[in-house]
Amino acid sequence: MSLLEPALDPVPAAAPARPLTPQREALLRALDARTPGHSLPAPLYTDPDLHQAELELLWQRQWVFVGTSAEVPEPGDYVTLDIGRASVMVLRDDDEQVRAFHNVCRHRGARLVTEDKGSVGNIVCGYHRWTYSTDGRLVHAPQLGPDIDPACLSLLSVHVREIEGLLFVCLAADPPDDVEDVARVIAPYFAPHHLGSAKVAAQIDLVEDGNWKLTMENNRECYHCDGHPDLLCTFFQTWGLAEHQVPDRMRASHERFLLADAELAQRCAAQGLPYPTISDLVDRPLGFRVERSPMDAAGESFSRDGTRLVQRTLGDVDGFRMGRLGLHAQPNLWLHVCADHAVTFAVFPVGVDKTLVRTTWLVDADAVEGVDYDVDALTEVWRHTNEEDAAFVALAQRGVSDPAYVPGPYTETEAQVDAFVSWYAARIREEIVR
Amino acid sequence: MSLLEPALDPVPAAAPARPLTPQREALLRALDARTPGHSLPAPLYTDPDLHQAELELLWQRQWVFVGTSAEVPEPGDYVTLDIGRASVMVLRDDDEQVRAFHNVCRHRGARLVTEDKGSVGNIVCGYHRWTYSTDGRLVHAPQLGPDIDPACLSLLSVHVREIEGLLFVCLAADPPDDVEDVARVIAPYFAPHHLGSAKVAAQIDLVEDGNWKLTMENNRECYHCDGHPDLLCTFFQTWGLAEHQVPDRMRASHERFLLADAELAQRCAAQGLPYPTISDLVDRPLGFRVERSPMDAAGESFSRDGTRLVQRTLGDVDGFRMGRLGLHAQPNLWLHVCADHAVTFAVFPVGVDKTLVRTTWLVDADAVEGVDYDVDALTEVWRHTNEEDAAFVALAQRGVSDPAYVPGPYTETEAQVDAFVSWYAARIREEIVR
Amino acid sequence: MSLLEPALDPVPAAAPARPLTPQREALLRALDARTPGHSLPAPLYTDPDLHQAELELLWQRQWVFVGTSAEVPEPGDYVTLDIGRASVMVLRDDDEQVRAFHNVCRHRGARLVTEDKGSVGNIVCGYHRWTYSTDGRLVHAPQLGPDIDPACLSLLSVHVREIEGLLFVCLAADPPDDVEDVARVIAPYFAPHHLGSAKVAAQIDLVEDGNWKLTMENNRECYHCDGHPDLLCTFFQTWGLAEHQVPDRMRASHERFLLADAELAQRCAAQGLPYPTISDLVDRPLGFRVERSPMDAAGESFSRDGTRLVQRTLGDVDGFRMGRLGLHAQPNLWLHVCADHAVTFAVFPVGVDKTLVRTTWLVDADAVEGVDYDVDALTEVWRHTNEEDAAFVALAQRGVSDPAYVPGPYTETEAQVDAFVSWYAARIREEIVR
Repeated sequence: MSLLEPALDPVPAAAPARPLTPQREALLRALDARTPGHSLPAPLYTDPDLHQAELELLWQRQWVFVGTSAEVPEPGDYVTLDIGRASVMVLRDDDEQVRAFHNVCRHRGARLVTEDKGSVGNIVCGYHRWTYSTDGRLVHAPQLGPDIDPACLSLLSVHVREIEGLLFVCLAADPPDDVEDVARVIAPYFAPHHLGSAKVAAQIDLVEDGNWKLTMENNRECYHCDGHPDLLCTFFQTWGLAEHQVPDRMRASHERFLLADAELAQRCAAQGLPYPTISDLVDRPLGFRVERSPMDAAGESFSRDGTRLVQRTLGDVDGFRMGRLGLHAQPNLWLHVCADHAVTFAVFPVGVDKTLVRTTWLVDADAVEGVDYDVDALTEVWRHTNEEDAAFVALAQRGVSDPAYVPGPYTETEAQVDAFVSWYAARIREEIVR
Repeated sequence: MSLLEPALDPVPAAAPARPLTPQREALLRALDARTPGHSLPAPLYTDPDLHQAELELLWQRQWVFVGTSAEVPEPGDYVTLDIGRASVMVLRDDDEQVRAFHNVCRHRGARLVTEDKGSVGNIVCGYHRWTYSTDGRLVHAPQLGPDIDPACLSLLSVHVREIEGLLFVCLAADPPDDVEDVARVIAPYFAPHHLGSAKVAAQIDLVEDGNWKLTMENNRECYHCDGHPDLLCTFFQTWGLAEHQVPDRMRASHERFLLADAELAQRCAAQGLPYPTISDLVDRPLGFRVERSPMDAAGESFSRDGTRLVQRTLGDVDGFRMGRLGLHAQPNLWLHVCADHAVTFAVFPVGVDKTLVRTTWLVDADAVEGVDYDVDALTEVWRHTNEEDAAFVALAQRGVSDPAYVPGPYTETEAQVDAFVSWYAARIREEIVR
Repeated sequence: MSLLEPALDPVPAAAPARPLTPQREALLRALDARTPGHSLPAPLYTDPDLHQAELELLWQRQWVFVGTSAEVPEPGDYVTLDIGRASVMVLRDDDEQVRAFHNVCRHRGARLVTEDKGSVGNIVCGYHRWTYSTDGRLVHAPQLGPDIDPACLSLLSVHVREIEGLLFVCLAADPPDDVEDVARVIAPYFAPHHLGSAKVAAQIDLVEDGNWKLTMENNRECYHCDGHPDLLCTFFQTWGLAEHQVPDRMRASHERFLLADAELAQRCAAQGLPYPTISDLVDRPLGFRVERSPMDAAGESFSRDGTRLVQRTLGDVDGFRMGRLGLHAQPNLWLHVCADHAVTFAVFPVGVDKTLVRTTWLVDADAVEGVDYDVDALTEVWRHTNEEDAAFVALAQRGVSDPAYVPGPYTETEAQVDAFVSWYAARIREEIVR
C-alpha cells in the first residue's frame, strides 16, 4: 500500500459503549475504589444518586423475595411490597395461581391498592373506578373512547416464581434464569417442611436506619453476636467459622455443636432429609446458601431453653429436635425453619439510609393460637434480636456517613460478609454494561 | 457566481439559541416524550429539578390568582402568598390601591411579614426596623451611610391586576398582556356579583400530597364525581360532556339539566346577564373558561337540597335560583358564584409533591354570621369535596411516582384535562426559548 | 543550541490547575457575584451543594472552637461534636493530655460513641467490641486475621490546640499555623481568668433555623439590639460604633460608656491586665478580635442590674467590676468573661439552613450551685438573647431563600459583619486553589 492511497480502517472499530449516566459512572468509580476484603466505600452506603442507580441496576433486575404463598392463601388475597419506588401487588388469582402486577392504574396512574394486604374480588381503582380482573385484564372503564382498546390496558405484570412456598418476583423484562437452578438445589431441602400450606402466625415490619447492604452484611456474621443474648441461648456463636478459627472462649460451645451436628446429621439421614451445606454466594445472580444446623440447649426452636414454641410440627418431620434449616438468598432474604415453625426475613430498601425488615412467623395451618402457640413467646427472640440488629445497623450507617470513614478489613469470621459485597459488586458490574 | 468564488452565507445564520440549563433540557425532553391525549410523563409530576424549572418558567411568568379584594378591604390590610419559594405581599395602600411587593427586606433580606394576613401602618422589618410606607418606599433606616440612597431601596414591586374583585399577580418583569383581553371578556359576567365589595365568611387552607398539576387536572373532570356524594346533590355529573357522551345511567339527571339550563338562560336574559360559555383554554397565556350553569335540586346553592346557604344575595341578582357562574383560569384558579355566595379555589405549589389549595367563601358585606348564614353549613359541601379530592390527588401522586407508571389515555369525559396539560406544555415551550 | 536539537523545556510548565468540581465552581461563581459591603449572594446561604463544598473547604481546614478543657476535667472524660457530617471525639487521655479523634471505628466504620459527653476507660466500639486505649491505639480486636496489623488500625487523630483552657480542633492534615500567633496575642488576656480550671455550670444547645453564617453575622452587630431588652441592661448598644457614628438617641448611654471605659482601663492597668482591643478579622485564617469593655449599670455581670451572678470570682481578678473580656474567633466562636463567670458560644453547621449554637457557662471550680450561684439566674439573659437571635436568624434565612432576595448594603454599624463575610470569602478563595 502506497502512502498516497487512502487508508482503510483495517479492523472495524469496537462498538462504542453507550455512555453511562453520571450516576452510573459514579457507582462504577465507587466500586473501582473498593479494596477486596474490606468494607465498601462510603458513597455506596450514603449517596442518594448511587442508591437510585442501584435500584435500577440491581433491585429492578434480580429475583427478590417477597413473602410466602401462605400470605395469599385464597383467590383474591394479595400483599403489596415496595421495592424502591415500585409497588408490586402479589395476589392469588381466581384460578389459584399466584400472580404479580405493578400496583398502578393504566388510566392516569393512580395507586391501585393502598393497603399492605387484603382481599379483592376484582381490582378496582379508587380514582375513576377502572376495574381489572385478578388476572390483570381491564374489564370495566366507563366512557372509554371508541379508539381506545381495553385489551391494551391490562395491568403490567411482574415475573413471579414460587419455590416450595417461597415467592420471588423479578421486575426485569428478562429475569435471570438461574432461579431454576437454585430451585432445583433448594427444593429438596424445603419440600418436607410444607411452607406453602403453612399459615402466618405473626408479621412485624421494622424500619432500620441504615442502608440495606448494612442490614444484609450484619446478618452474614456472628462476630457481633455478643450483642444478642437471647439468640445465643440456641444459636451457636461459632456459625460461619472454620475449625481453626474457633476462639478458645467458644471451645465448650463448639464441642456441644460438634456432637449436636453429628446427631442431627444422623436424624436427617434417617428421614431422608438432605443435610450438606451448599453455598454459592458470589458467582450467580441468585447467590444463596442453604444449610442445616443443630441448635443449642434443647435444640428444637428459638426459645430461651431451646424447647418448641409450637406444639405441632410444621410439615413432615419426625420429632422436634431438628435444629434449623437456614437459607440466605441475595439480595434480600434469610430464613430459618425449625420443626415447629419457620421465620422469614425480607429486606427492602426504603431510601439510601432506611431499610424495611419484614419478619414473618409461619406455623402449621391447623395450629391454634392460644392453644398450640403463644404469639408473644413465638416471636420474642427474633423481636429482641431484630431490635439489637437495628441498633447495630444504625451505628454503622452513622459511622460510614462520616467523612473520616475509611473502609476497614474484615476479620476471619466475616467471610460471608465479604462474599455478599463481592456478589453485590459483581452484579452491578454485570448489569451496568448490558 | 462561479464555483471558484468563495461562497457567502446567503442568509444570516439563525441566532444561536442560548444553551439551556440541564434542568430545562430535562423539562423539554419530558415534554417531548408526551403523547397527546395521554397523562403527562412521570418526571413532570415527580422530579424536583423539573419542578424548580417550572417555577421559573411558568409560575414566575404567568398571571397567578392570589385572592379577592375582599381580603384586603382597608388601607394597610395585607395577605401573603408563597409562589414556590417567593413570598408575595398583597396589600391595600394608603391611597386604597391594591399593590403587591416581594416580602423581602432590602437590607439583608429578612422576611418582612410572617403572618398569612394582617394589617399594618407602615411595613416594618422585624430584624433592624427598616420601615417602608405602604407604597413600598423606604422611609426609615437608622444609621444608613451617606453613600447609600434610600430611594434605591424601595420594596421590589410585583405586578397586580384586579378584575371585578379578583386579584392576579405576575412575578415577571414583563407580564403577558392578554390579561386585558381576558378581563374584557369575563368582567361582564362578574360585574353583577360585586365580588369586590363582598366579605370573607371563611377561608380554609388544605395541603394536598400531590403535584399542583394533578390538583388542576382533577378539577377539570367530573369522571371521578362518584367520589363526591355531597357535591352531586347539586352538581350535574354530566358537566363537560357533549350530548352524545352522556351515559345511560346519567340520562335522568341530564334531562333535568336540560330543563334547568333553558330556564336559567331565560332568567339571565331577563336580567341582562351574559350566559354563553366561553372557553379559551389552550392557546393563550391566561387560559380560561367562563360559564353559567344550572344546579340540581333547588338550584340555588351548594347545599344538600340546593337551597340557599346565605339569606342575602351577593350582588345585583334577581332571586336566588341563579345556578352558578363558574370560572377556571390557568394556572391556578377555579371558582363558583351562586346568588347567595361565592367560593374561590387558589392553588399554589409547595413542593414537587405538595400543593396548597386555599378555599375562600365570600358573602355580602352586610350578611351577619349566625343570622344570615352559618359558617359550618356554608362550607360543608366543599370541605367534604376538597378532602375527597385531596385523597384522589394523593393516590395519583403515589402512582405516577412508580417506575412502572406509563401515561394512560384520557377518556371522552376528560377533554378539559387534556386542554389543561396542552396549555401547560405550550406555555413551557414558549417560555423556554425566550 | 541548534534548531535540530530536541528542545528541552526551558522552564517547567505551570502545574495545570486541577479542574474544580461543579460544586466548587458554583461556590466560586457565587463569591464572584458578591458586592463588597453587601450581604452575600443567596446560594451561599441556601444551596446544599455549596454548603457541602464549604464544609470541605472551610470547616475541614480551619481551626474550630469545640469547647473548654473544663468540659473534660478527668482522664477518660470526653465530648463529641459534629462538624458537618464529621463527628469528633475530644477526650482527656490517661496521661491527662487532651486529644481528639474521629469518632469512627477502624473496622467497618461504626460510630464509636453516641453520647454528647461521658467518660470511658477504653474506647469500645458497640458493634464488634473493637477496643482502643485513650491514646487511640487498637488494643483488642478478636479474631483479627494474621495479615492484619493492629498498629495500622489506630483511631484517626484530629489536631487539637488548647489556649488557656479554650480548645480548638482542626480536621486538616496540615492545619494553618497561625493558631500559634493568635495564642501568643490572646493568652495574656485570658491567663488571669483561669478558664482551664473552671467548671461547667450549665450548657444549652439551641438549633437555629438558618445558615451558620447568618448566625455569625447576627452576632457581629448590635444594630438589631433593640430586640434584646434583657441584654441592653448591661451591654452598651454603641458597641462597634466609631465616635462619629453614635446616634443621638444613644448619646446618654455613650456618655456612661466613656466614663466606665476610662475607669475600667485604670482598674486593668492597676492589675496588670492588658486592655487594648486587638482586631485581626479578615486577613488571617484564625480571624479574631479580643477586647475588654465595660458593662452598663453595676458593671459586673450579665444580670438585669449588672450585679454579680456568682459570689466567687473566676480566676485571679481584683473585685467584680471588671466589665467583660470578649473574644470573637472565626469561623465559630464568641465569648465573654466577666469577673464572676464566663460564657462561651460555639457554632456548628447542622445543614445548609440549620445551625447549632452551644452556650456554656463556666464558674470557679469551687463555686457551689445553690450557694454561690443559681443556674436559672446565671443563664437568664443569654437564654433570652439566644432565643431572640434565633428568631432573627430564621427571619433572615426565610428572606434570603426568596428568589426576590437581592444582597443589600451594610450600614455603618455593620463593619464587623462585613469583616466576617470578607474573611469567609478570602478563606474559601485561598483553599479552593490549593
